[in-house]
Order: sequence, then structure tokens, then C-alpha cells
Amino acid sequence: MEKKRILTGERPTGKMHLGHYIGTLKNRVKLQNEYESIYIVADLHMLTTKNKPEHIKASEQNTLDMILDQIAIGIDPGNVRFYLQSAIPEIHEVYTLLQNLVTVARLERIPSLKDMARDANIEMPFGLLGYPVLQTADIIAVKSHLVPVGKDNVAHVEVAREIARRFNQMYGELFPIPDFLQGENASLIGIYGKQKMSKSADNAIFLSDEPGVVRKKVMKMYTDENRIRADIPGKVEGNPVFIYHELFNPNKKEVDDLKARYLEGKVGDVEVKEKLAFAINTMLEPFLERRQKYSRSGIIEEILVEGTDFVRKEVQQTVYEMKKMMGFTGIWNRIRRRVEKHRKQLKKE
Amino acid sequence: MEKKRILTGERPTGKMHLGHYIGTLKNRVKLQNEYESIYIVADLHMLTTKNKPEHIKASEQNTLDMILDQIAIGIDPGNVRFYLQSAIPEIHEVYTLLQNLVTVARLERIPSLKDMARDANIEMPFGLLGYPVLQTADIIAVKSHLVPVGKDNVAHVEVAREIARRFNQMYGELFPIPDFLQGENASLIGIYGKQKMSKSADNAIFLSDEPGVVRKKVMKMYTDENRIRADIPGKVEGNPVFIYHELFNPNKKEVDDLKARYLEGKVGDVEVKEKLAFAINTMLEPFLERRQKYSRSGIIEEILVEGTDFVRKEVQQTVYEMKKMMGFTGIWNRIRRRVEKHRKQLKKE
Repeated sequence: MEKKRILTGERPTGKMHLGHYIGTLKNRVKLQNEYESIYIVADLHMLTTKNKPEHIKASEQNTLDMILDQIAIGIDPGNVRFYLQSAIPEIHEVYTLLQNLVTVARLERIPSLKDMARDANIEMPFGLLGYPVLQTADIIAVKSHLVPVGKDNVAHVEVAREIARRFNQMYGELFPIPDFLQGENASLIGIYGKQKMSKSADNAIFLSDEPGVVRKKVMKMYTDENRIRADIPGKVEGNPVFIYHELFNPNKKEVDDLKARYLEGKVGDVEVKEKLAFAINTMLEPFLERRQKYSRSGIIEEILVEGTDFVRKEVQQTVYEMKKMMGFTGIWNRIRRRVEKHRKQLKKE
Repeated sequence: MEKKRILTGERPTGKMHLGHYIGTLKNRVKLQNEYESIYIVADLHMLTTKNKPEHIKASEQNTLDMILDQIAIGIDPGNVRFYLQSAIPEIHEVYTLLQNLVTVARLERIPSLKDMARDANIEMPFGLLGYPVLQTADIIAVKSHLVPVGKDNVAHVEVAREIARRFNQMYGELFPIPDFLQGENASLIGIYGKQKMSKSADNAIFLSDEPGVVRKKVMKMYTDENRIRADIPGKVEGNPVFIYHELFNPNKKEVDDLKARYLEGKVGDVEVKEKLAFAINTMLEPFLERRQKYSRSGIIEEILVEGTDFVRKEVQQTVYEMKKMMGFTGIWNRIRRRVEKHRKQLKKE
């Protein structure tokens, strides 16, 4: 039996960090054997909030960094395909041909788009309202069966399902209706608490951080702000250091012991943090080794070009099928044929 | 000195009628020598309100009919270029790359888009909100200097000017800012009064109508509804028959005489209409002759294919320039080059 196909990915806006790892990357490692995986580097989606020349310029290094990040944490480049969205011109055509199958009102009801505009401090561009439509194009252009989702992106995949269904009803059965694949987690809190971890908030531990850098960042982490001395009982719940211990420290006994002593005011922040830094670095160590192996110039590029060439052929085939089913191909072929006939006729005369 | 370039055209939704003639076609005949003219058959724009398979199917004949209509009324196919929008895949790319240079709020302020949705009896699709953005893509993809406008389409060209200017500011000087070319007229009233002339309202005299058909339609025209007998004084102002006399009867003395007698109740509707039918048929007669000449199968198709091939090359060039200025081309080229280097390196080892 053929494997079902997954499409997932992100915009090339920066190196990946522990938030990505917990949110999606760990899940991808699990899924890569069970499903055929295609990972998009969505640089056209990036344009919806970051379209200045410097953003586009930075996307080159970000693209390569992010693929390397994913391979480093255990994605097997022999197993999955990476592609660069902007290097597939036909995706624009898929996108435009879907745009009349969804209403403005439907898209305006998606709260995440408003959040994105607000976070980027811009008035919503037309392209941002079309974000889920372009996403639909990505998904159905490779006839993906499944899209990994967390609660953040369920609404976008719902739009994709509606549009795919609408196309099939209107022009004939062409697209599988993409299913949700639960498994993505919500975002991780940043090292200073409050905000979620992100490059732009400058509160991230990157997957590529060296042990010394990780240790320094952990030592700066916010804990319980009311605990101004080690002998004051502290709060564990919602405390970034303990959230991280739960996620990254596999030594559950140690974590339970630290928590118990923290609640009683019997452990210093330094000990809690040293142990966390050790746990994170232990997790990251094999990642750094794999990273070394793939860091040689040209390897990541090779993976990206191969994947893009593969996906481009698929998208070209999809566009061909879409235009055929809609009727455009037939019209243009008939017109071309009548021209040939007319030219032959003129020659004869 | 090189001629300035005009882009204009319409959606392939039906044969052209006297309303088109008065509104735009007469103007096109005048402009064709002064400017380099490119005429779009905007079938992708058609999808914004008519995207059912039967609409797309009908667009084939409509496309050919409308080009023939234009040539019949005096457009010289040696002078202008016609092209089919959907046969130029690269236009989608121009369109997408512009979508983040205009806000949703800006587009929602254009009343004509709401009117179009209401007239089509649909909730506004995402693609319809993007109508002026796709129009911008058409205009700037061929670096058009001028767009003929009436009061209906000024707002769309304003959007095109804003987007072109924004692109130039952001990524470097590439597009001329398209100028308005006044000269288009408002719509013509239909033969039954009230509604404007349109195929869908079934109140049109087509440019391809034979003299007998024209006469029959004119005889059915609405006049002054309060004038139930020929000896009752009638109203000339707003009276469809006299609106048409003003526009289509070059014999001003006859029109003045008919008006005077109509106001005094001294002329029957039949005489007024017979003279109108004669005037319209006299105008249409040379059009029907030219139509014959170009009706042979394959000629219109040849004109369309030649124009489309020409325009496609220009659009390809524009996309190339856009992506180069935005930075995408450079990124992909550098990635490809590093792959080549890497492969050579592997061979050497």
C-alpha cells in the first residue's frame, strides 16, 4: 500500500529553536517513516508580513539554516523532500484558480490572520487575507492527504478542505480532501517567561546553540519572581524553568526532587538551572554532531534543489489537470488547432 | 519617438452591442493610430463572478465573437494586439507578487466590486476583491503607460497607480505609473429604458445584428410611456428613442425636426422609430461587410494567437525583472550554483 502524503513547513524567517522542536519538529521525526513527507519553505507566505528587500535577502540563509536544523534533529533527507515555494512558478496559477472558491467574509472570520497583521504592525495586506488560500494551493498542488495541525492552524486547513471540496464539486473530482493530523503542540514560553519563544522576541534557545551558549541562556531564565532568596518556597506551575525541565529533562526522578525542594524553599535557582542546562545540552549534543556532517557547502542546497525539482513536476501536472477540468486547456488547444488548419489552407491556395 | 502603450479590454461574457460601441469601441478606433494598443480578453477576471464550467465553456465563442466585433467596427488587426489572459501563465506570478502591496481595507473601499457581487447575486469571493490587483498585473506586466477610463473604472486604475508606485519605491524603478486616458463614456440605456444595455438584460442591439433584427428591436423600443396617442405632446429628454437618435443619427436636421414634432404631438412613434432603424442600420452596414471578410474560420484565432505569443514574451520578461529586483532570482541562482560546485567536488573525490 502506498504511503499517505503529508505537507508541512514554515516561512524562512529565522533559525529554529526549542519552541519549534517541541511544537512540530519532534512530531515530524515520528511521522517521517509512516508517511511520505513534503516540507515547504514558504517564502511567498513570508511576503504577507515581511516583503521588504532585507526580508527576502535574509530568507536565503534562513532557508538553508532551517533545513539544516531539521536534518540535525533527526529528519532523514532520504525520507522527506524539502522545496522552495518561490522556485515553483506554477504554484501561483494554482493559487489564482482557487481564489473564487472562497469568500472574503469566510477568510475575514479567521482570527489568526488579524493576529499576524497586528504582530507585524501592519494594516492587513490583500495577500495576508489570502494566506490560507495560498496554503490550500500548496496542499492540494501536491495532492496531500494529511496536514499536521495544532490548534493554531486548524482554521487554515478547514479552508483548504472547503476549497478542495468546492473545486471537486464544480469541475470534477481531482483533489483528496486533506485531513487533519493531530500532533502539533502549542508554542513554548520564551526564556524570560510571558511571551512565547521566538527569534524576534530575542528569548530563544536555538537548536544550533553551542553548550556554552545554552548554559548562559538558561542561567538568565526567569523563574518565580517572588522568590528573592533560595530559602523562600517557590511556585513550580507556570515557572519557565520547570516547564523546560518537564519537556527536556528525561530524568523524571531528578525533576520531581527539584520540584519538591523548590516548593519547600530548599533548593537554589542555580542548581535547578545547572541541571536544566545539562539536560538540554545532552539532548542537543547528537543534533550538533549531525549538523557537522551536513554543514559542508552544497549539501543542503542539493537536498533543496532535488526536492524542488520533484515537487515542481507534480505541481505542473496538477495545474495541467486543473486547467483541463476547468476547460481552459481545451479552449486554447482548439484555437491553436484552427490556426494550424488556417495556415495549411493558406499554403494550399 | 516611440508610441505610448495602452492596455484595455473586457471579460469574454458575450457579443458586443451598441452600448460597447458608444462606451469604448468608438474611442478605441480613434486611439489605435496614436498609441500602441494591447487589448486583453480577460477570462481570468470573468472567473470572479462567472466561474461555472458553462461560463468557461461559453467564453471560447465569446472571445472570438468579441474580437470579430471589434475588427468589424474598424479596429485594424495590423494596428493592435489581442491576447487571451488565461493563456499567459506568468500573469499569475505578477499578480501574486503584487498582493502584499495593497491592503484589504483599500480594496474594500471600491464600490464597484460590491456592485459586481450584488449584480451576480453572490457573496464576494476573495478573487473579486482582488479584481483591481489582477488588473494592475495586466497593466504593468506589459508596462502600459495609459489606460482608457470612464467614471466606472477610475478607481481600479487608481489602485494600479498606487501598487506600481509602491513596487518602484520598495524594490527599485521598474514600472511606468499608468495614466488615465479620458474618453470612455458611461453606459447606454437598453431598448426598454430603465436598465443599461447588456446581454444578460436581453435589451441589447448587437453590432452583429442583421438589418431586419435591428428594425424589429427598434420597433419594440420604449418611448414616452404617457404618450398613448400620436397627437399627444411627448417628452424627448430621457426618451430612449431620442437618446439613440442623438447618438446614432448623423442627420441632425432630421433629429431636430422629429424632436420638435414629438414635443408638439405631431409625429407618430412609427416614423421616429423607422428613421432610427434606418440610421442605425446605415451605421452598421460597413461593419457587417468587414465582418464577412474576417469571418472565415481561423483568421480571428490567428490574430489572437499571434497577439498572445507576443504579449506572453513581454510578461515573461516582466516577471523575470520583478523577481530579480525583489531578490528571488539571485537566491535561486546562488543555490543552484552551489549545487553545481558541490557535484563537481564530489566527482573529483
